[in-house]
Amino acid sequence: MSDLVIRPIVASDESEWRRLWTGYLEFYKSKVSDDVYASTFARLLGNEPYDPKGFLAVLDGRPVGLVHYFFHRHCWRIENVCYLQDLFADPAIRGKGVGRALIEAVYRVADEAGCPSVYWTTQEFNYAGRMLYDRIGEKTPFIKYQRPAG
Amino acid sequence: MSDLVIRPIVASDESEWRRLWTGYLEFYKSKVSDDVYASTFARLLGNEPYDPKGFLAVLDGRPVGLVHYFFHRHCWRIENVCYLQDLFADPAIRGKGVGRALIEAVYRVADEAGCPSVYWTTQEFNYAGRMLYDRIGEKTPFIKYQRPAG
Amino acid sequence: MSDLVIRPIVASDESEWRRLWTGYLEFYKSKVSDDVYASTFARLLGNEPYDPKGFLAVLDGRPVGLVHYFFHRHCWRIENVCYLQDLFADPAIRGKGVGRALIEAVYRVADEAGCPSVYWTTQEFNYAGRMLYDRIGEKTPFIKYQRPAG
Amino acid sequence: MSDLVIRPIVASDESEWRRLWTGYLEFYKSKVSDDVYASTFARLLGNEPYDPKGFLAVLDGRPVGLVHYFFHRHCWRIENVCYLQDLFADPAIRGKGVGRALIEAVYRVADEAGCPSVYWTTQEFNYAGRMLYDRIGEKTPFIKYQRPAG
Repeated sequence: MSDLVIRPIVASDESEWRRLWTGYLEFYKSKVSDDVYASTFARLLGNEPYDPKGFLAVLDGRPVGLVHYFFHRHCWRIENVCYLQDLFADPAIRGKGVGRALIEAVYRVADEAGCPSVYWTTQEFNYAGRMLYDRIGEKTPFIKYQRPAG
Repeated sequence: MSDLVIRPIVASDESEWRRLWTGYLEFYKSKVSDDVYASTFARLLGNEPYDPKGFLAVLDGRPVGLVHYFFHRHCWRIENVCYLQDLFADPAIRGKGVGRALIEAVYRVADEAGCPSVYWTTQEFNYAGRMLYDRIGEKTPFIKYQRPAG
Repeated sequence: MSDLVIRPIVASDESEWRRLWTGYLEFYKSKVSDDVYASTFARLLGNEPYDPKGFLAVLDGRPVGLVHYFFHRHCWRIENVCYLQDLFADPAIRGKGVGRALIEAVYRVADEAGCPSVYWTTQEFNYAGRMLYDRIGEKTPFIKYQRPAG
Repeated sequence: MSDLVIRPIVASDESEWRRLWTGYLEFYKSKVSDDVYASTFARLLGNEPYDPKGFLAVLDGRPVGLVHYFFHRHCWRIENVCYLQDLFADPAIRGKGVGRALIEAVYRVADEAGCPSVYWTTQEFNYAGRMLYDRIGEKTPFIKYQRPAG
């Protein structure tokens, strides 16, 4: 039986973290500069309350997934809410419960922080993701608008 | 000709701010406790970098709209992004450009902060809002999921 | 008080019908050839059971709106269903109940035909239309796909 | 290598057709009466121009999928359009190209009829279906509304 461990990202994870996060960014046909890799990794390891934190999913000793989350204010609440921004599981190991375990780890850390409200966004046509999200979360009627690019 | 001024919310605005924000919350068939009114208003007036700030729209001397926004981290960027959370224009004065002026004020403050990326969410069926958002922003393919209620 | 009459389209309506239907097609940034105008108008006046039929809305003696509908098979039913394809109310008279009266006329004719199931489609971003449709109909989770253009 | 044949439904297919169509209806958490099974099967075998027709997908001699389609009027065109109403592939054999082959068979018969415009609808959350439809068709911005149930 395979052994899945979800644990906080630590400094020695940098190269594996970079590989997995790159896979996530490529899924969104996106990329970021080395400065952003450096800045985000430093924030993940730091202690600033509004900076992102993250978990790594390790299956049989091999990093196979990650999640990034952070807390932010919400005008309708006193406590913060938790935004689960990035979620990735290596496509080669889909179906092993890695995505679900990563989301549930965020649910737990949000509960511990006293900020149990967790949300995320996804592209309407991310069918594989939504198959999971419909089971572990609930779709809201909210859609995202953004300021047009300069 | 009517005179529309967009200006930061100040302490003496509390009762008018409360009236307008209540209108907004009612639009979403929601309400918040007095503690939340107190906490959010205090944050709007404070100086914490991750707390919400806001603008009031004043038409011919009368407060007729408001916007709340705050900055938060984004793993894909070094600088923060700006989340425009609450936007309200008194339905009685719709069509005067109040909503647009409030959003543009947030665009300006985001630029000044070096965080030009601004976004917001809205319910898919908020037709009146989307008529404006399609002109001043752009719809993304992102939809929001949330952790199911307890 | 204004006087709104919904009545079947007749041969002498051709020029007014053409004016109104052109308005509808322009709303969809579309146009059709003279052959299509001629063919569709002839079908509206004919007796073929699967051809489109239509109503004109006449407000204070002036044609201000139209609807086209037809019946078609449905594999899940013995009786046909009614597809309300085109609905138009002169934008200048919006808010007079013309759209609602036209849809309700189709509901009645569908009932008389023993085919009470009526449906229509609309663009997701047709906000003005959807404000009406949410009151008089119900949104289904169905979205439309089509064969790609040649 | 497996052998996939798409062929018109014939009278001797009734029991296999019934089994497959029942699977489709169950996917939509629906069912129909025996009268509807009888009526629809008779129409599939008949020659009425506005009645549904269908194809069976046979993989290695075993019926594994079906499609129903029919033509109907369209006010914007002289020729009819083709509505692909029901599409089903046995979940046990997904990934063998059965759905795609059935849709392409409808494309061909629509071309032969001089009515190349083919469309279908699907529930927004039919992720497995949409993975195929995004490859072989194109999503339109049209959503379906219906008359509320009596």
